[in-house]
Amino acid sequence: MTTSATPTPGIPTPAADTNRLTITGAGLVGSLLALYLARRDYQVDVYERRPDPRRAGVDAGRSINLALSDRGWRALEGVGIAEAVREVAIPMYGRVMHDAHGNLSQQPYGQPGQGIFSVSRGGLNRRLLELAEAEAGVRLFFGQQCLDVNLRQQELHLRDIETGAEQHVGYQHLFGTDGAFSAVRGALQKTERFDYSQSYLEYGYKELTIAAAPDGGWVLEKHALHIWPRGSYMMIALPNLDGTFTCTLFFPFEGADSFASLQTPADVTEFFGRVFPDALPLMPELTDDFFHNPTSSLVTVKCFPWSLGDEALLLGDAAHAIVPFYGQGMNAGFEDCTVLDELMERHGADWQTVFREFQQLRKPNTDAVADLAVYNFVEMRDKVADPRFLLQKKIEGKISAQYPGQWTSLYSQVTFSHRPYAEAWANGQRQDAIMARLMKHIETEADYDRPEVQAMVEKELERAG
Amino acid sequence: MTTSATPTPGIPTPAADTNRLTITGAGLVGSLLALYLARRDYQVDVYERRPDPRRAGVDAGRSINLALSDRGWRALEGVGIAEAVREVAIPMYGRVMHDAHGNLSQQPYGQPGQGIFSVSRGGLNRRLLELAEAEAGVRLFFGQQCLDVNLRQQELHLRDIETGAEQHVGYQHLFGTDGAFSAVRGALQKTERFDYSQSYLEYGYKELTIAAAPDGGWVLEKHALHIWPRGSYMMIALPNLDGTFTCTLFFPFEGADSFASLQTPADVTEFFGRVFPDALPLMPELTDDFFHNPTSSLVTVKCFPWSLGDEALLLGDAAHAIVPFYGQGMNAGFEDCTVLDELMERHGADWQTVFREFQQLRKPNTDAVADLAVYNFVEMRDKVADPRFLLQKKIEGKISAQYPGQWTSLYSQVTFSHRPYAEAWANGQRQDAIMARLMKHIETEADYDRPEVQAMVEKELERAG
Repeated sequence: MTTSATPTPGIPTPAADTNRLTITGAGLVGSLLALYLARRDYQVDVYERRPDPRRAGVDAGRSINLALSDRGWRALEGVGIAEAVREVAIPMYGRVMHDAHGNLSQQPYGQPGQGIFSVSRGGLNRRLLELAEAEAGVRLFFGQQCLDVNLRQQELHLRDIETGAEQHVGYQHLFGTDGAFSAVRGALQKTERFDYSQSYLEYGYKELTIAAAPDGGWVLEKHALHIWPRGSYMMIALPNLDGTFTCTLFFPFEGADSFASLQTPADVTEFFGRVFPDALPLMPELTDDFFHNPTSSLVTVKCFPWSLGDEALLLGDAAHAIVPFYGQGMNAGFEDCTVLDELMERHGADWQTVFREFQQLRKPNTDAVADLAVYNFVEMRDKVADPRFLLQKKIEGKISAQYPGQWTSLYSQVTFSHRPYAEAWANGQRQDAIMARLMKHIETEADYDRPEVQAMVEKELERAG
Repeated sequence: MTTSATPTPGIPTPAADTNRLTITGAGLVGSLLALYLARRDYQVDVYERRPDPRRAGVDAGRSINLALSDRGWRALEGVGIAEAVREVAIPMYGRVMHDAHGNLSQQPYGQPGQGIFSVSRGGLNRRLLELAEAEAGVRLFFGQQCLDVNLRQQELHLRDIETGAEQHVGYQHLFGTDGAFSAVRGALQKTERFDYSQSYLEYGYKELTIAAAPDGGWVLEKHALHIWPRGSYMMIALPNLDGTFTCTLFFPFEGADSFASLQTPADVTEFFGRVFPDALPLMPELTDDFFHNPTSSLVTVKCFPWSLGDEALLLGDAAHAIVPFYGQGMNAGFEDCTVLDELMERHGADWQTVFREFQQLRKPNTDAVADLAVYNFVEMRDKVADPRFLLQKKIEGKISAQYPGQWTSLYSQVTFSHRPYAEAWANGQRQDAIMARLMKHIETEADYDRPEVQAMVEKELERAG
């Protein structure tokens, strides 16, 4: 086996016997991490439960997309594949809200030209795997279910999902990127004094489809994330390259309007006609999708520590699974790779130090983005339908334009910057307090230009330093 | 098999095929629960990992005690064994604080005559097991490690700890009283949308011993719980029948004064001589105890739901493990039995209803006592050494005596009442706010009688309604 990477100057080259690194999970974070590790001249083995997604027939038929933003882009740039991904990503420059009468309103995400990008989860994963395997010599083992991780023996207990054959595979340094239900974390949970929480929302989600136009075009504004905010629930839609949109309905499991209450195709059609009237005609496969696609749950996982000596480290959802409402799950996982790479640059193969500093640096930030993501659900399903909220966002935009560098919205700090999430959130909370004081004096957009409001803004910004 | 219990009138007698109930865990809560279930004419099987504690040689040598208070007593009364337990329990009427110079101060727990009771964990457990087996025909299977619970098949996977033989045992209705590291909860954790958290303090604890006097008597006040509060850590001691006291050192795992910093017998002796000077001469086995007894961790476990249909229910530490600082762990678990019994009285063998109402009733209260227990650690290790805090407690005692029924301290509500924990804590927080206002006007005990203070107290109580 060879790798195409050259050693980075100044970093101790790993000794032959510690040169092999093991990853569990070849999802988005696992496959990107494999690339990062291989490019530092490690030999990387990746074990993944699912079959190879590059094989025909796997994952076919469903188009699931994700919103990629600045933190994710930086991580892709770090291994030189951002440009290739950008070619198949669709920029979304703002939200388009659909009210119950089909009326639309808009809210830009940031400054003109700033956007988040709809990318295909499967496509991105396949591209990362191809690069890892072809360019960097990473060994990928698919269809290997991890039954157990023996931390003491440093051994994975694997089961081939096709043959049923079991094997034990030793590891020197293990990277657990095996997702929200991580087997590596499951093993760590049994060690002494491991803090752990998993917390579910009383909402589930289901993916649905808005069809392409007959000519293959998009039937809604292509460069936007669409939201149907309905107070206690919502639907969103992100564009795909083939003209379709993937919709996600976030909906209570139980109650009057809920997954439990929609039992027949007629129930579903009546409900969508009543609450999403402009979307219903665009969803010819609605009832098929509704009853065939799974209803998934929404979990937040927090834990600590993420590492065991120099032997094991959790990253991505395995360490910090979050709900999807800030579009930061993948981005936070990719940022893990950036931060780990910086620490490898600094400490070389001193894995104990790398792992310890990694968890110390990342834990407060992934805790913050977990809380932000839950918080943003309320904003998306409820507040964006409130004219006062939208007015406040416009006023914030004006402050931001008038005082460049002195006011960056919380959304922009999270989405369009690399500021640590915890700092972003603390700033956002200070800004919220300022806006609450300011909005008492503002009824219309024009009020922003009134001298007393201008004076207040100036004073608040001075005080905020 | 026969049982000594007669069916309660008015309750549907369980059908023959649903007559068998299964319990995992024969600790304090499991063995008391077995008694409660058997006395309602169910056939009860209990599987326990440890060997039979009634066999010679098991648990010998160490005397571990617990504080039994009103909630626990009521549960014991419900199966008619309170009087027998009271004969071997030592009442403690208050705290005795030992300062760093060996000076003592006291604080009563409640009204004169009110106390909590030091009981032997092993003795109580053995007595409950004897009663369950002899009087109620419960079948006890010891040395049966539960490797796995198959919730779908309704089957326990057990392993005999002596022979290694494995067996699968079916169940109809399963009661998980298998403690903080419950296997039943482990299985529930893998079901959909199970909220779970385990959270550790950065403190551990170690049990130590104060020896009896040569004549078999007690070298410290027998009818008190002794505390050596030292700000960031503490030691406590509870009396045993044999003249000894069992001490527990609650101590940081890491740091300047910590388990990590005491590495040799000389370290330990120097440390105890410096910070617990009056205790050191009473602890001839200190260094042996210190290096032979385990250092245990302090975990809070919260989860929900506690039940799965009519098939499984968690109780006691399996559902709500708490830290020991309010002396409520066993009492809360015993209260679970009282509440479950009331629901069986109401709903008979409608287990789904019993389980659902049980978790709805108990969850807010066990969450409250979990938080109270963490909160009380600060009180015990730090505040009880503060003269202002002790003055405040004296003033509270005066209010309580002057306005009987209108002011019951939080401690008394938790310890000497059956008021739901959540209500007690909410009351306690209101009282804290009142005392903060009142104490601004009080410098000495005598100040309480000043007319303006008397007027304030009257007003506050009126407002509190």
